[in-house]
Amino acid sequence: MHKVGVGVVGLGRIGRLHAEILKMKVNNAELVAVSDVVESIARDVGERLSVKWYTEYERMLKDPKVEAVIISTPTFLHKDMIIKAAEEGKHIFVEKPLTVTTQEAREVISAIRKYGVKLQVGYNRRFDYAYQKAKSDVDKGKIGKPIAFISIARDPGAPPGWAADPKLSGGIFLDMLSHDFDMARWIISSEIVEVYVIGGNYIFEEIRRKGDLDVVSIVFKFKNGVQGLIHGARKFPYGYELRTEVYGDEGVVYVGSSIDNMYARGGKEGLVYHGAPWFEKRFYEAYVNELNEFIEAIVEDKEPPVTVIDGLRVIEIAEACWRSVKEGRNVNVELSYY
Amino acid sequence: MHKVGVGVVGLGRIGRLHAEILKMKVNNAELVAVSDVVESIARDVGERLSVKWYTEYERMLKDPKVEAVIISTPTFLHKDMIIKAAEEGKHIFVEKPLTVTTQEAREVISAIRKYGVKLQVGYNRRFDYAYQKAKSDVDKGKIGKPIAFISIARDPGAPPGWAADPKLSGGIFLDMLSHDFDMARWIISSEIVEVYVIGGNYIFEEIRRKGDLDVVSIVFKFKNGVQGLIHGARKFPYGYELRTEVYGDEGVVYVGSSIDNMYARGGKEGLVYHGAPWFEKRFYEAYVNELNEFIEAIVEDKEPPVTVIDGLRVIEIAEACWRSVKEGRNVNVELSYY
Amino acid sequence: MHKVGVGVVGLGRIGRLHAEILKMKVNNAELVAVSDVVESIARDVGERLSVKWYTEYERMLKDPKVEAVIISTPTFLHKDMIIKAAEEGKHIFVEKPLTVTTQEAREVISAIRKYGVKLQVGYNRRFDYAYQKAKSDVDKGKIGKPIAFISIARDPGAPPGWAADPKLSGGIFLDMLSHDFDMARWIISSEIVEVYVIGGNYIFEEIRRKGDLDVVSIVFKFKNGVQGLIHGARKFPYGYELRTEVYGDEGVVYVGSSIDNMYARGGKEGLVYHGAPWFEKRFYEAYVNELNEFIEAIVEDKEPPVTVIDGLRVIEIAEACWRSVKEGRNVNVELSYY
Amino acid sequence: MHKVGVGVVGLGRIGRLHAEILKMKVNNAELVAVSDVVESIARDVGERLSVKWYTEYERMLKDPKVEAVIISTPTFLHKDMIIKAAEEGKHIFVEKPLTVTTQEAREVISAIRKYGVKLQVGYNRRFDYAYQKAKSDVDKGKIGKPIAFISIARDPGAPPGWAADPKLSGGIFLDMLSHDFDMARWIISSEIVEVYVIGGNYIFEEIRRKGDLDVVSIVFKFKNGVQGLIHGARKFPYGYELRTEVYGDEGVVYVGSSIDNMYARGGKEGLVYHGAPWFEKRFYEAYVNELNEFIEAIVEDKEPPVTVIDGLRVIEIAEACWRSVKEGRNVNVELSYY
Repeated sequence: MHKVGVGVVGLGRIGRLHAEILKMKVNNAELVAVSDVVESIARDVGERLSVKWYTEYERMLKDPKVEAVIISTPTFLHKDMIIKAAEEGKHIFVEKPLTVTTQEAREVISAIRKYGVKLQVGYNRRFDYAYQKAKSDVDKGKIGKPIAFISIARDPGAPPGWAADPKLSGGIFLDMLSHDFDMARWIISSEIVEVYVIGGNYIFEEIRRKGDLDVVSIVFKFKNGVQGLIHGARKFPYGYELRTEVYGDEGVVYVGSSIDNMYARGGKEGLVYHGAPWFEKRFYEAYVNELNEFIEAIVEDKEPPVTVIDGLRVIEIAEACWRSVKEGRNVNVELSYY
Repeated sequence: MHKVGVGVVGLGRIGRLHAEILKMKVNNAELVAVSDVVESIARDVGERLSVKWYTEYERMLKDPKVEAVIISTPTFLHKDMIIKAAEEGKHIFVEKPLTVTTQEAREVISAIRKYGVKLQVGYNRRFDYAYQKAKSDVDKGKIGKPIAFISIARDPGAPPGWAADPKLSGGIFLDMLSHDFDMARWIISSEIVEVYVIGGNYIFEEIRRKGDLDVVSIVFKFKNGVQGLIHGARKFPYGYELRTEVYGDEGVVYVGSSIDNMYARGGKEGLVYHGAPWFEKRFYEAYVNELNEFIEAIVEDKEPPVTVIDGLRVIEIAEACWRSVKEGRNVNVELSYY
Repeated sequence: MHKVGVGVVGLGRIGRLHAEILKMKVNNAELVAVSDVVESIARDVGERLSVKWYTEYERMLKDPKVEAVIISTPTFLHKDMIIKAAEEGKHIFVEKPLTVTTQEAREVISAIRKYGVKLQVGYNRRFDYAYQKAKSDVDKGKIGKPIAFISIARDPGAPPGWAADPKLSGGIFLDMLSHDFDMARWIISSEIVEVYVIGGNYIFEEIRRKGDLDVVSIVFKFKNGVQGLIHGARKFPYGYELRTEVYGDEGVVYVGSSIDNMYARGGKEGLVYHGAPWFEKRFYEAYVNELNEFIEAIVEDKEPPVTVIDGLRVIEIAEACWRSVKEGRNVNVELSYY
Repeated sequence: MHKVGVGVVGLGRIGRLHAEILKMKVNNAELVAVSDVVESIARDVGERLSVKWYTEYERMLKDPKVEAVIISTPTFLHKDMIIKAAEEGKHIFVEKPLTVTTQEAREVISAIRKYGVKLQVGYNRRFDYAYQKAKSDVDKGKIGKPIAFISIARDPGAPPGWAADPKLSGGIFLDMLSHDFDMARWIISSEIVEVYVIGGNYIFEEIRRKGDLDVVSIVFKFKNGVQGLIHGARKFPYGYELRTEVYGDEGVVYVGSSIDNMYARGGKEGLVYHGAPWFEKRFYEAYVNELNEFIEAIVEDKEPPVTVIDGLRVIEIAEACWRSVKEGRNVNVELSYY
C-alpha cells in the first residue's frame, strides 16, 4: 500500500516530536524529509531518523517524495509557508494557531481552495482521550443538556522569544487561549457569538511592554445559548493548570488537573502533590492521533478533523477579545461568511 | 460571670441548629427562649432544651432575660423583625441575607444606629476553617499578590417555598450567590465595583415563571484591580458543588470540593465518589464559631465580625447583577456612602 | 411516650459528647444525670445541660430515673462498673474496648446474662456512613465475592495517660486496632481465626518501656477464607490516617483518607493538603447514630447492634496478636464458645 | 563519538518499544538489528526502523555491529539466550525477571562473570520519576527513619499465554510481584530476610489448574528491621492498581493511584473516575531512562543500575514465598553468597 511521504519543517521541540511520530507511529505515512534553518539541527534529526534533511524549506517543497508538510514554525511565518506549500500541491498540517490575523487566515483559505490541498490545524487537545471523553459524553447526552463551558488555563510562565510579541503570536487570546476557544466550539458544537473580557498586566513587565496581557477573565455566549467562562494566566507556580468543565442539567464533566496523583509526600506541613506532567508527555498520544487522522484524511480524501475554518474562527474570537478589552464592554464576534 | 441571655426566633432547620449550639457550645451565652409561629415546633424545641418557648416573637422580645435575638426567619420578614428587636434594645444576629432590598437595608442601618444595638449577619462561611485558611494565606502573602477570585456554586435543586420567589428572597444573586460575593469581598479585602452577567433559565420552569434565573455567569472587578468570576447554578446531580479559588502571582488557594473523599467504590465503570456532606454537617463548626463571635462582640462591646454594612454591600452587588442582566452590558455597583 | 432515662459516667471529651448528644439528638432518651469523679467537671456539664450531676457513680446508679448508663471511663475500670450497673438492673453502653482481658470479658458476659440487662460496646465506626456504605456494598455483592480486607491505621501520636500502659488499655492491638478488627469481622461477616504479626518499637521510648509496640503489621485469615492485612502505627505527621479497603473479584470499596479535600494551597513546592478532620468531627454522626440504636434496642427490647460477644471477640484477637509477636510465628485465635 | 550497536530480540509489545526507544531516544546507542522468530514481525519492525532484521537470534549474535542485545522473550528462554550472548561477548539487557529459578540465575551469573559482559535486568520502575522521588525522599531523610514498606498491586487480569504457567514464568511471586520486591529492596536499601504468605485461588480456575495463586498477602522483614506488606491480585475491574507507600517516623511517601485524575464525570450516581493509564504509557519515560543508563554503563564501563545480583535476589524471595505458602508458616529467605 502507498504511504504518504511527509516532510517536517521547523525542528523545535514540537516539530521534532512530529517527525519522530511520523517515523514510528503513523502506519500510512513515511517520513521522507526534515527541514530547519539551523543546519546542525536539521542534520542531527535527519541522521537519527534516517531521512533527508534540508535547510531550505523551498527545496524540501520541491522534493517529489514530499506529498505533505508539517509546519511547526513560529505563527507569523505560517501564512507564507502554507501558501508556498499549497502552490506546490502539498497537503498541510500547521501548528496552532493557523495565522496571526483573520486577514491572513482568509488569504490562506483562498490558497488552499485554489490549489485543492488539504489543511489541518494542530489543535491537539481534540485528539486527547480526556477531552474526547468529555465531547463524547456531552454528545451522548450523559450530562443532559449542556449549559455552561468553563475553562481555567494557567501556563508555567511567560512565552519565550517571538511568542512574547502579540504582533507575531496573536497574544494571550490567540497564542494561549485559542486552545480553549477551540475546545469550547468543538465540545459545545456551536459558535461563540459574544464576548466580554477583563484583563490586565499583573505579573510580567515584559508582557506589558510588548502590549500583551498576562491575566484575563472572559465571559462569552454561544449561539445555542450555552454560557462560557475562561480564565487564563501566564504564570503557575508548580507546573501548569489546565482544567475544563462542562455543566449540564443532568451532570458535569471535568477534564484536567493541576496535580500529578502518582506521587505525594506527607510530612508536618500536610500532603504535598507536584504538578501534572508537562504537556508533551500529557498530550503525547494526542500528537500521535492528530497526525494519524491527518494522513487518513489524505489517504481517504476526506475533510481533515480540524479545518481551516476552525482555524479562522478562533482568530475571530481572539480579535473580538482584544476589542472588548479596548472598549471596556461586551462585543459581538464578527464571523466571516464561508 | 454574666452570660448573655439569647432568644431564637424561627425554628426551621437552621434556627433549631442555632438554638442547640447556644445551649451547648457558646460559653458566654445562655439560651433562655425560643419562638416559632407553629406552636408544636416551639414547644418541642423548648422542652428538649429546657427553656421557655413562645409563639409570638413580640412577647419573646419583652422577656427581660432576652438580651439578644437570633432571627432565622424568611428574608422578607427580616427588616421588620430587626427593627422591632432594635426598638427593644436587643442585639441581633440575623440569617443571611440581611434584607431583600438595599432600601430595606438602609432602614435597618438607621434603626440599629438609632438604638445602639449590635447586628451581625449570618455569612457563616467566614467562620469555616477552610475559607479562613484561604483568607489567612492570602492576607499573609502566601500566594503573592492576589489577582483573581473564582467561585463555582451549584445547589442541589431549586429553592423551596418562599425562597423561590425573587421578590421575597432576592433571587439567585442574593439568596444563593451573596455567600460568594461576601467571600469575595472578605478574602480580597476590596469592594466589587463593576459586574457583567449573563444568565438564563435552563432547568426549572417554575423559576422562570417567578422571574428568577437558574444559571448565571458573572465577571466582576474589584476596586483594587483584582478580577472576579462566579458561576452559579440551581442544580447539581450528586449533592452540591462549592469551590472557590484565589489565584495570585506566587500561588493559588483552593476551597471546597464536590466529592466526599471518605468513600469510593471501584467497579467496571471506574471509581465512584459520592457528593460532599451536605452543608449543615460541612459548616457545623462555622455555625458554632459565628455565634461565639457574636456573643463575644456583645460581651466585649466591639464591632461584630460581619457588619450591617457587609450585609448591605452584597445586596448592592445583587442589584447590580439584575441591572446587568436586564441591560445586557457591564454596569457599576452603586455603593451607598456610609 | 416514655423516654429512657440515661446517666453518663466519665465526662472526658467523649463522655461529654455522649451527654450532649443524649440531650439533643436522641428522640427516645432523656438525659437525667451525669457523673464524674472531678466535681467541677460534673457540675459544669450538669448545669449546662440542665440535669443532675454526681461525683459518685454508685449514687447515680441508685437514681431510679437512670435506666441506662453510658460508661466512658478508662478501659481498666470497665469490668467493675459494668457489673455494678448490671446488678442495679441498668442497661449499659460502654466505650470500646469492652474490657482489658478476655477473662474480664467473660465475667461481664456472666453478669449481664444473670441480670438480664442489655450491653452495647462503643465501636462507633459501625455507625459511620462511609463504613456503612462499605458494609452495605459488600453485602449486596457490589464488589462480587470479598477476597481481602486491608486497613491502614495511623494515630497522630502516642496515647496519653493510662492508655499508654498496655496493662490498663490492652496495648496497640486492643486500644487502637480493635476498631479495625471489629470492622473486619463486621464487614466480612466472618470470624478471624489465625493471625501473624510483626511489630516493634520504632518511635516512642515510653511505649517500649511500658511494654507496648508502636508499629505493627498483621496478616490474618478469616474462617470463610478471606485474607486480612492491617498496618498500625502510633504516629502520623499531619493528623491521622485511617484507610480501609475491601477487595472483591468484581470491585473494591475504599473508606477513609488522610487528607481533607476541602482546602489546598499551591505554591512552588506543589499543592499542599492538610490532614483529615479529627475524629470527633469525622465521626460525630456515628456517635449520634450509635446512641440512637442503643436506645432503640432498649425500647424495642432487641439485641444491641454491637454485642458483648463482639466486644469479646476483638479481645481474643488482640491476645492472639500478642502471642504471635512473642512466639514469632502465626497462631490461631482462641475463640470462646458462646 | 562511537555509538553502541544494539540488537533487540523478541519483538512483542515491549520488545518493539525498546527498539523504537533505541532508534529515537538513546543518544549513545545505534539500533542496528532486530530479531523475532516470526518473520513478518521481524521484517515489519526492521523496515519501519530502517535496520537489519533476523529470524534467528544466533545469527544476529554473530553480527559484528551488535555489541549489546536487548532480550525481550519469555522468561523461560532467558537463561539460554543470556548465556549465548555472553559467549559472543555481547552486553545484555534482559527483561524482568532474570530467570525462572535461582539455579538458572546462578548459571547466568557464572557466564557473565566468565565472559566479562555487563547485564542489566529490566526492573523499569526504578527509572520511573515517581518511584525515584520516593527513593530520593527516603534516602534524604524526608520521611525520617523508614519503618514500613507497603505495596498493593492488582493486575487487570490473568497473565496470557506462557506466563500463566508458573513453571515457565515463576508464578505470581516472580512474574508479577518481583517488581514490588525489587522496589522494596531498592527503596529501603536492605535485604528481605523473612516472609510469611497467605494466598489462594479465588478468581481464575485456570490459574488454580496450572498451580499458581491469584490473590496473596505477604508480610516480610528487612534485615534492617523495617516491616513489609504486599498485597497482590491478578484482577482489577477498571485498569490496574499499583500503589506503594513508605512510612517513616516523620513522614510518608505515596506512589501510584488506581485512577486517572485527568477526567471525571459527575451524574446522579456521583463522580466517576476511570483507571490510570496503562503501564506502557505510565512507564514510557522509565523505559527510555533504563536503556539510556544501560548504554551509559557500557560506554563508561561501570556497573549497570540493576545488576544480575538484584535479579537473583527477587527470585530467592519468590522461592521463599512459595515455601511459606506450602508450609503454612513464616520462613527465612535463603540468600546465596556473592
